[in-house]
Amino acid sequence: MSLQPHHDGSATYVPEQEPALGQTVPVLVRVPAGAGVDQVHVRTTGDGEPHFAEAVVDRTEGGDVWWRADVEVRNPVSNYRFLLDGAAGARWLNAAGLVDHDVPDHGDFRLVSYAPPPAWARDAVIYQIFPDRFARSAAAAGRTAPDWAIPCDWDTPVIGRGPETPRQFYGGDLDGVTERLDHLDRLGVNTVYLTPIFPARSNHRYDAASFDTVDPLLGGNAALARLADAVHARGWRLLGDITSNHTGDAHHWFTAAVSDVHAPERELYYFDLAGSDYESWNGVKSLPKLNWGSAELRRRFATAEDSLLRRWLRPPYALDGWRVDVANMTGRRGADAYTHEVARLLREVVADTRADALLLAEHGHDHTGDLDRDGWHGTMNYVGFTDPVWSWLRRGEGTVPNFLGTPGGVRRRDAGAVLATMNTYRSLISWRSYAHSWQLLGSHDSARIRTVVGDADRQEVAAGLLATMPGTPVVFAGDELGLTGDNGEGSRTPMPWHRPERWDARTFAAYRSLLALRRGEPALRHGGLRWVHADADTLVFLREAPTGAVLVLARRAPGAPVRLTGLPAGENVYGNAPALRPDADGAVTLPGDGPTFQVWRLT
Amino acid sequence: MSLQPHHDGSATYVPEQEPALGQTVPVLVRVPAGAGVDQVHVRTTGDGEPHFAEAVVDRTEGGDVWWRADVEVRNPVSNYRFLLDGAAGARWLNAAGLVDHDVPDHGDFRLVSYAPPPAWARDAVIYQIFPDRFARSAAAAGRTAPDWAIPCDWDTPVIGRGPETPRQFYGGDLDGVTERLDHLDRLGVNTVYLTPIFPARSNHRYDAASFDTVDPLLGGNAALARLADAVHARGWRLLGDITSNHTGDAHHWFTAAVSDVHAPERELYYFDLAGSDYESWNGVKSLPKLNWGSAELRRRFATAEDSLLRRWLRPPYALDGWRVDVANMTGRRGADAYTHEVARLLREVVADTRADALLLAEHGHDHTGDLDRDGWHGTMNYVGFTDPVWSWLRRGEGTVPNFLGTPGGVRRRDAGAVLATMNTYRSLISWRSYAHSWQLLGSHDSARIRTVVGDADRQEVAAGLLATMPGTPVVFAGDELGLTGDNGEGSRTPMPWHRPERWDARTFAAYRSLLALRRGEPALRHGGLRWVHADADTLVFLREAPTGAVLVLARRAPGAPVRLTGLPAGENVYGNAPALRPDADGAVTLPGDGPTFQVWRLT
Repeated sequence: MSLQPHHDGSATYVPEQEPALGQTVPVLVRVPAGAGVDQVHVRTTGDGEPHFAEAVVDRTEGGDVWWRADVEVRNPVSNYRFLLDGAAGARWLNAAGLVDHDVPDHGDFRLVSYAPPPAWARDAVIYQIFPDRFARSAAAAGRTAPDWAIPCDWDTPVIGRGPETPRQFYGGDLDGVTERLDHLDRLGVNTVYLTPIFPARSNHRYDAASFDTVDPLLGGNAALARLADAVHARGWRLLGDITSNHTGDAHHWFTAAVSDVHAPERELYYFDLAGSDYESWNGVKSLPKLNWGSAELRRRFATAEDSLLRRWLRPPYALDGWRVDVANMTGRRGADAYTHEVARLLREVVADTRADALLLAEHGHDHTGDLDRDGWHGTMNYVGFTDPVWSWLRRGEGTVPNFLGTPGGVRRRDAGAVLATMNTYRSLISWRSYAHSWQLLGSHDSARIRTVVGDADRQEVAAGLLATMPGTPVVFAGDELGLTGDNGEGSRTPMPWHRPERWDARTFAAYRSLLALRRGEPALRHGGLRWVHADADTLVFLREAPTGAVLVLARRAPGAPVRLTGLPAGENVYGNAPALRPDADGAVTLPGDGPTFQVWRLT
Repeated sequence: MSLQPHHDGSATYVPEQEPALGQTVPVLVRVPAGAGVDQVHVRTTGDGEPHFAEAVVDRTEGGDVWWRADVEVRNPVSNYRFLLDGAAGARWLNAAGLVDHDVPDHGDFRLVSYAPPPAWARDAVIYQIFPDRFARSAAAAGRTAPDWAIPCDWDTPVIGRGPETPRQFYGGDLDGVTERLDHLDRLGVNTVYLTPIFPARSNHRYDAASFDTVDPLLGGNAALARLADAVHARGWRLLGDITSNHTGDAHHWFTAAVSDVHAPERELYYFDLAGSDYESWNGVKSLPKLNWGSAELRRRFATAEDSLLRRWLRPPYALDGWRVDVANMTGRRGADAYTHEVARLLREVVADTRADALLLAEHGHDHTGDLDRDGWHGTMNYVGFTDPVWSWLRRGEGTVPNFLGTPGGVRRRDAGAVLATMNTYRSLISWRSYAHSWQLLGSHDSARIRTVVGDADRQEVAAGLLATMPGTPVVFAGDELGLTGDNGEGSRTPMPWHRPERWDARTFAAYRSLLALRRGEPALRHGGLRWVHADADTLVFLREAPTGAVLVLARRAPGAPVRLTGLPAGENVYGNAPALRPDADGAVTLPGDGPTFQVWRLT
């Protein structure tokens, strides 16, 4: 197998990573020797009309010809793709790869002129904490459980589905998080993401009763300030979780709206004409849907000087950004389509409040239409990462439910299908949006990866992909210990701090090594993505940065060794495989054992 | 080869063709026996969240199982696709076809709740006339050529490229068109589309000097009224051509704008800060670009009671709609993105002026992002029909330039690539937008089909696809006579009325028969599209309507006969092939000779 012509949006191929509107920037295509290409054009569609410009040879390096063309950032988002000509025929090269027939523009590469996400986000490794289940400080014992709660001992089994599910109250709090930051440090993360912390009537708190204070059950505002100080003292970042689609029905906005049809809060929600019913999240009446057609909502939520969006980004909490819950539905209802307006408004207010804050959208299915504008910096990439990884590595038996509730759950797919899905989703957004989206192996809304894949060997492969692919890795607290969970609610497992015998030390060590590898290798954080090989059980790819490149091998099962030409020698930096040494024919051979995850630093 | 599970947006599969917002409508999937499907779900994403509903068996018919599911038209455009389960594995069925890995929503089927295009457009067959080159009435001889013109005799060769190209003046006029309507009747069209008829300083008149009167060189307003009367007297329709992207630099709006920086017309265009330069179409200074950020432009062009858009739709002209020139660039410039606003505004004004008027957008490349909203009814489908048909049928030697100026021109592709391109573009828009877009084999902006394919045999195959695929067929005047032309300007060939020896009678007869077939077969005008077979040189498809179905075979070269199972008997209704008769195994065999075009009506 030999390498193919390649371009992606990373710095190796697009040296100007923050182009301005109107700027003309060079873009490069790498064409391996023998790829049958002797002419390259770049196609752009500035102001809606296609134009072609011929590329020139920039340099020849180690057998690769680097072609260079100039692209004008004519529009806020400017798309381009390449036409390759030569002995191999006429082919398009777009973000989905090489194709030998005419294609629409949706797979084009993109230059985005909007302000980039904060620089720290490029190097972030996120640890997701569901506060009720992470850790209790000493103060927790002194608190009285609220009326809705079913108090649980830390060892009580989590109920994955049932009327008691949202009421099981374990009493984790923010000082508990603060006390456990050394664990995060050992693991190697640098950003803490907290699911909601406002008062509510459930353990998940996505049914906020207020956005004005931190839930006293979590220790209140002061505990958040203490946690923020501790996180920031380590040079880390802290992210909050905000519900823009709905509030809880106990929210003081909603209770005011219900009690008086003339209340200013009435317009914040969708009441029917009779006034007796209201729109809610998927019909769940405890989660009344917010109406973003309301100017008053925009003011309270975002634009007011003391809006909820702003206040928690300021000291003494100084959250470094927000994960936006149910961003996929926010502003969407029937003929109402405010989603982009909301994203733009929230981005503008967040940036105005704090220049280095992150705004990240939840999206559990096709997010591609909502990115690459002046709104969300990125999204939770369930569809382009989690789902395909699960479908490749899932355990052999039983049904594995996915986040979306697809009938039949996660189907087992071979690497070709995984690659097709990943490539398609990636091709629909800019490299920037892709690389700044969160990649995760699971969350508080899904089964746990250990349960999905069934054993530590394949969890290591999954964690390897998490740590080495583009995107911001997110570890759901407890995954690093090999915790299990059958579905979203069932995976909200309390951390077994007092049961070290339940920790899977091997899994923790793998996560720790993999995250350290990512921290140490700029190519893993900032490099491009170049697929090199896929067979049913094997994925091989390169991450290439101007500072160097690594080769990654992921196998879900043993198979034939993979022979690759066109690669230099390399030292093994993760796994236990031999170094790569080109043979007399210039080929390197990757080992055939599996499941395995191996990384080589190329020289 | 056997049939696959199928759905498209036609009435066989979506009985409710004009769904209203909020309505719930049934959709059907046809699953042939042996397709390995025993469960079907429909997936929707109303308000931004995926939902699955299980389909039920509606009926079993001739071995096919028809599954039915309900879909709510939750949003103005509501997308859906199917999940098929069974012995053949889990597959998605979307508008691009069957796929065995997870896919984004852009290929989903769509229900559109906006008002549909006028009913007559579904049955339209359009004849495109470039007035300077179609026919001269007796009055033409008495007119004095304008200062910019190079008067030409009707036999003067057309110059395809050069400074004289836009100045060659042949003097065709509107009464000339009126006098030749019998030719159109013999051919079998029912809609006349005129490229621009306003005064200008070129033979193409896309550089309008005014929108207020018909060019006196064409006979003026009275000649248009006469033509409109004659067209409408036959029960036909008449379409105009309007430039929304630019005017000519001789336009009185532009001369006023240039002469006075304080003129109200100044804001209609894009002048630079120094006032010395202005934006123009692709840098052509005679075509200054209109600025749709201007409220005054919106008023003059569209909303005013006597706006140009309205006045020509009213008696005595009563145009039945507009083809919108350079719709792809209209409203697009750098950070300005008014395109959808303009489309919506024009649609609103057109519909307000005349409920049964058509609004059709020129788009020479990927149009898919501009349809399925409340703007354009359809587009010129160069990318999803013209280009793939050309690439399949192009002559063997030389370069064939395409409309877009792609370097290397039209590449020769096999039917698999043709199908991939057609399917991809079709899958990105609703069935309605697809079926109401114009399909053409060429225009005044491209080479002529006869020159592209090189001979009458393959032109017949091309004309066959034009007449039998979904979409509104458009015949560029002269194609039916086998006229030739190397590029857009070169194809603006004067009609050889006085040279009958130059007419290709066989080609005319083929067009005439094919268009008659389309008129006679509801399935060809309103049926779905179900691909049955493709090999390099062969395309076979079904058009299915509740009233009946036809099978179409197109071959660019001879090859092996194609054996198909699952089809009934059929009578040959175009071409000279035998009737289809299932053999003892229930298979029918399509003949292997070629190039050929054959149609059977199934019984």
